[in-house]
Amino acid sequence: MQQSDDKISADLAAAVSEGDRSALASALNLLDDQRARVRSQAAELLALLQVNQQFRDRHLIGITGPPGAGKSTLCAALISVWRKRGLRVGVLAVDPSSPISGGALLGDRLRMQTSHEDDGVFIRSLSSRGQFGGLSAEVWPMSIVMLAGFDIVLIETVGVGQREADIAQLCDTTCYVAQPGSGDSVQFLKAGILEVPHILVVNKEDMGNVARRTLAELRSALNREHPDGHWKVPVLATSATTNAGVESLADVIDEHHNALTTQQTLLPRRRRYQIYWIHKRLLEEFGSFGIERLGGEKKFLAQLEKNQLDLFQHYESLRKQLHKI
Amino acid sequence: MQQSDDKISADLAAAVSEGDRSALASALNLLDDQRARVRSQAAELLALLQVNQQFRDRHLIGITGPPGAGKSTLCAALISVWRKRGLRVGVLAVDPSSPISGGALLGDRLRMQTSHEDDGVFIRSLSSRGQFGGLSAEVWPMSIVMLAGFDIVLIETVGVGQREADIAQLCDTTCYVAQPGSGDSVQFLKAGILEVPHILVVNKEDMGNVARRTLAELRSALNREHPDGHWKVPVLATSATTNAGVESLADVIDEHHNALTTQQTLLPRRRRYQIYWIHKRLLEEFGSFGIERLGGEKKFLAQLEKNQLDLFQHYESLRKQLHKI
Repeated sequence: MQQSDDKISADLAAAVSEGDRSALASALNLLDDQRARVRSQAAELLALLQVNQQFRDRHLIGITGPPGAGKSTLCAALISVWRKRGLRVGVLAVDPSSPISGGALLGDRLRMQTSHEDDGVFIRSLSSRGQFGGLSAEVWPMSIVMLAGFDIVLIETVGVGQREADIAQLCDTTCYVAQPGSGDSVQFLKAGILEVPHILVVNKEDMGNVARRTLAELRSALNREHPDGHWKVPVLATSATTNAGVESLADVIDEHHNALTTQQTLLPRRRRYQIYWIHKRLLEEFGSFGIERLGGEKKFLAQLEKNQLDLFQHYESLRKQLHKI
Repeated sequence: MQQSDDKISADLAAAVSEGDRSALASALNLLDDQRARVRSQAAELLALLQVNQQFRDRHLIGITGPPGAGKSTLCAALISVWRKRGLRVGVLAVDPSSPISGGALLGDRLRMQTSHEDDGVFIRSLSSRGQFGGLSAEVWPMSIVMLAGFDIVLIETVGVGQREADIAQLCDTTCYVAQPGSGDSVQFLKAGILEVPHILVVNKEDMGNVARRTLAELRSALNREHPDGHWKVPVLATSATTNAGVESLADVIDEHHNALTTQQTLLPRRRRYQIYWIHKRLLEEFGSFGIERLGGEKKFLAQLEKNQLDLFQHYESLRKQLHKI
């Protein structure tokens, strides 16, 4: 039984890595399933995907910003630039949990704007829920699976406070799309309430003066290095309808990826998020009391950092340990 | 020992209820202390305060909104209106945990604008931290203590996403102060990302047209009943510098309190929050696994709802039970 499970995971991992769409869909569904046996299968799959390759050349990009800023249109424009460059793109569209009045979901909106027949684009919607800073806890493992199959994985979400902060930690590169003429984003950024993105975009459309003023405000508010270090936050103007500036945005996104790999901070950054994710998941399931049982936060985190084995499997073994208490 | 502890709690409860400032300060410090013996003393104090009176005539008011909207100035103006009406006012100023670039803290800003010698105003600052939707977990018990000593308890915080949602659940009445000329608030409200406040304020200062446009946008976006029911969300204009509209705002806040007491929803609302608070605290400490140990979420919540005894003491007994597992 165990052996055939291993075989299933290995086959699935291989198919996902080759970009097989139906394998990808199965793998994503696996991550959403909470039954014990499925959970350990999923952990194994994630371990296999991570061991096979560390996805150093792949890029996990977050696009966030207020509703109405034109994120979906911009994502569609970016995707068509990447496709022209021969890159395969996976998208996770994360919607806020309970929109009172809604409009179309992010994923649906994006689907309408991209070609249905393009095999190099894969879009998955999921609704955010749970405690995970307003982001669904599955976003991280799903990102790992998508990175195995695509050159670029794009996470689109509506950014407010905690959700936006979590996206900024999870992704290699975060772009914040500001709404022209709005003051809140600038105020929030200045007050340190919004996480500082790596790239700021004003999607100006045809708004002329208003967009120019917003651009100037953001440039003066963000005229500094990113807190991550060695990166000055660029503020770009784009028009998703005329495509102006979209190529440059794709270039700047790529530059940030290069900067991360050159500074050798890409993989440590992902590993840091993985540890944060495990910590947060265990807190959700077992609380601060559970972490105490594992020897306290400090010891627990130090052990995770030392761990050379796969962290997803380590996480499953900690869960089993705590369940027996 | 137990008896003298009881006596201390009873004396403290009595002094707090009489509005004794130093007793109030001691009581608030007690709530911040995590040592086991202090915790049970604090639970006892909260029980005494709640049993003595249910604060039906007192009003817990939240003021939230983006930085720069003029919340502190407006709070100061409201406080002076309430003082003229002979009401005693307690303030909890909750600051976001780690402002990168800051400016003065909310509480300090408010202190500068109110009279130092007025014995009928009490201001306490605390920084938000922890998982509690970005709000400090102590805000609720502190509110209960403050309600014992003041006619009005005002909670001022910078609202973004989860923090703002939690304030809206915790307070009897929530006012959102919008920034004139900003589009994000309107967008967020429309998209259902911001919790709908009971009262919307545009603090217009001298901004003329911009403020008028924001006012019109908000009025059309919020032309509906509050999801709580039986309350149409008013959108008011104030100028905290000239005091225009501040008396009317105080009247509308009072009307909402009257509506809640007439509809007999004030106390059930507070009790609902208290149950939510206990659930959330236990999740933080013991995780979903801990709630399972108490028989699962459904059974656990049903038991809390049936409970006729004091909920703070019930909470402490659940904690003890889970610590023994």
